[in-house]
Amino acid sequence: MSTPTTELEKRIFTDIPLARHIGVRVVQFDGRTLVLSAPLAANSNHKGTAFGGSLFSLAVLAGWGLLTLKLAERGVEGELVVQESRVRYLLPVTGELVARASLPEDRELDRFLIAVDRYRKGRVRLNVSIEHDGREAVRFEGTFALLNVS
Amino acid sequence: MSTPTTELEKRIFTDIPLARHIGVRVVQFDGRTLVLSAPLAANSNHKGTAFGGSLFSLAVLAGWGLLTLKLAERGVEGELVVQESRVRYLLPVTGELVARASLPEDRELDRFLIAVDRYRKGRVRLNVSIEHDGREAVRFEGTFALLNVS
Repeated sequence: MSTPTTELEKRIFTDIPLARHIGVRVVQFDGRTLVLSAPLAANSNHKGTAFGGSLFSLAVLAGWGLLTLKLAERGVEGELVVQESRVRYLLPVTGELVARASLPEDRELDRFLIAVDRYRKGRVRLNVSIEHDGREAVRFEGTFALLNVS
Repeated sequence: MSTPTTELEKRIFTDIPLARHIGVRVVQFDGRTLVLSAPLAANSNHKGTAFGGSLFSLAVLAGWGLLTLKLAERGVEGELVVQESRVRYLLPVTGELVARASLPEDRELDRFLIAVDRYRKGRVRLNVSIEHDGREAVRFEGTFALLNVS
């Protein structure tokens, strides 16, 4: 059965060749958070922990994917791109990479959707967290812009 | 002939499987800057421009690689990891990805090397720039930490 999350996984694989090598999987979407995962083996570094570039890639795909799903719910189509981000590596990740993107507060999200509706473009910030053994290992804050809304 | 840059390229490929899929190449090292490249095809996104995760990965490898070469020149060995970074996507990259990492000012670099010598650890900030058609397309500022110096 085709669901928004299987569609998203297919789209990520089709559009972004590197995502196949990272081994991105859509784990869960509950309307407010999107969880993506990737295996450690394909994403390890010289210390046998997760490579910072893989962690960043999974986080940015989680944020992009969550906004893509929310915009699709509203029938909004446009070009969604990351404009800026800050990422902090707090702890090494020594197992599966699991990134959880969370929608901003309702007020922030509404402000974004109103701008998109009014100006056919908008930008919004959101956070993605990668936990390991129950502790936050990576904190990603990103600003995404939606352009050329049709 | 084995040179520090061919050794670095080999080490990146051996240690970080994803770097092979990104297609990282060491282009140039002049003692103060390190240039890495990667082909667009393996790193494209839904818009046919470079994927933000690939641009970040190339930038972080350029910063990591430059510091690794400078530390090797001094015979310093330890675990070099990225701790934090900020990345701004200013323009889309529609061709080969080329990242140029630059050493910090001498005073900053000296401060780092003195800390490493004295405390067997240290941290340093550096910038990586990805240009496209002569204009800065991506600006990466990263903080790297050297730990467990032997």
